[in-house]
Amino acid sequence: MLPEEVRNFIKIFSSLPGIGIRQATRLAFRLIGSGKANIEEMAESIAGLQHLKICSRCFFIHKNHEDLCDICRDPKRNQNIVAIVEKETDLISIEKTGKFKGRYLVMGDLAKTGDMETIQKLRLATLKNTAKKSGQFEEIILALNPTTYGDLSAAVIAKELESSTKKITRLGRGIPTGGEIEFADDETLRSALERRS
Amino acid sequence: MLPEEVRNFIKIFSSLPGIGIRQATRLAFRLIGSGKANIEEMAESIAGLQHLKICSRCFFIHKNHEDLCDICRDPKRNQNIVAIVEKETDLISIEKTGKFKGRYLVMGDLAKTGDMETIQKLRLATLKNTAKKSGQFEEIILALNPTTYGDLSAAVIAKELESSTKKITRLGRGIPTGGEIEFADDETLRSALERRS
Repeated sequence: MLPEEVRNFIKIFSSLPGIGIRQATRLAFRLIGSGKANIEEMAESIAGLQHLKICSRCFFIHKNHEDLCDICRDPKRNQNIVAIVEKETDLISIEKTGKFKGRYLVMGDLAKTGDMETIQKLRLATLKNTAKKSGQFEEIILALNPTTYGDLSAAVIAKELESSTKKITRLGRGIPTGGEIEFADDETLRSALERRS
Repeated sequence: MLPEEVRNFIKIFSSLPGIGIRQATRLAFRLIGSGKANIEEMAESIAGLQHLKICSRCFFIHKNHEDLCDICRDPKRNQNIVAIVEKETDLISIEKTGKFKGRYLVMGDLAKTGDMETIQKLRLATLKNTAKKSGQFEEIILALNPTTYGDLSAAVIAKELESSTKKITRLGRGIPTGGEIEFADDETLRSALERRS
């Protein structure tokens, strides 16, 4: 019933994270109805992503001729302090604070079970190799979400890297700015009390 | 912080129905990480949609050289019975039953308020013009969802088309096959009683 082009589009789009077959089907019809110029613009916006590369040190994206991203090749950044983040958007959020002068390691989506995928083990291995060659890191910050799976993953990563760094830390927990004590859960309030300053 | 290609991708993708900025951002990074071959495949799957056209009679998609889709140019279909559907996927579901031998009119996403958009008024106008030229339709089936907005839209469309057709019907309501009486809402059960057979 559906032309091959539509079936192909649905197959490929529904394989993307968070997009199901229903939504991909709706998108296909919406795009066809939006006309050739829009379809071309959309195809080009995807093709444009080909020009981006993944940093060989921290696995963030970049457009440089070399293998390193802007942060990793910045001589003013401290390469001995590493913030391990789950997502590229976490890195961007931390960069926006302007408070962090070390470098990063992007892990990619973490499993809810705390188990590491092969690609994630390889990424952690790059830190271990660097430590072996150039000595232990000063500090590794596990900048993962303070959620159950973030805590699980942090425990696994901390064990993996314990001999590669002098210090392993996590982001401080407490009541977020603008938040209300009344609505803070027990765990958050406990952390806020322990870390009072 | 983000390269232009990524910002462009996010801007275009987050304008699609059901895709927010967060999801578009995740998709961008996921695609970049998936490598050039995957990015190209995805871009091509979109570009492929350019080859599809919209039927000038029922507004379903097709790939024919003429202006009409396979259903509208099929001499075995009764052009005097029209099923008005909201979505292309509704048309496909009805076709799969093999029970309908008329033709369709695809309205496109209906507003929750029952108000018709300009493009939808134009689509209804094609039916009115046909009726003026070739006489009233035998039957127009309002094959819209039995929901509040579906009912509202059906009322508006019925009023619009009352002089263009001998009969206006809607799909039968009742307990779906495999459903349980215990869980049927009042309205459904009332319909099922009224339409018992």
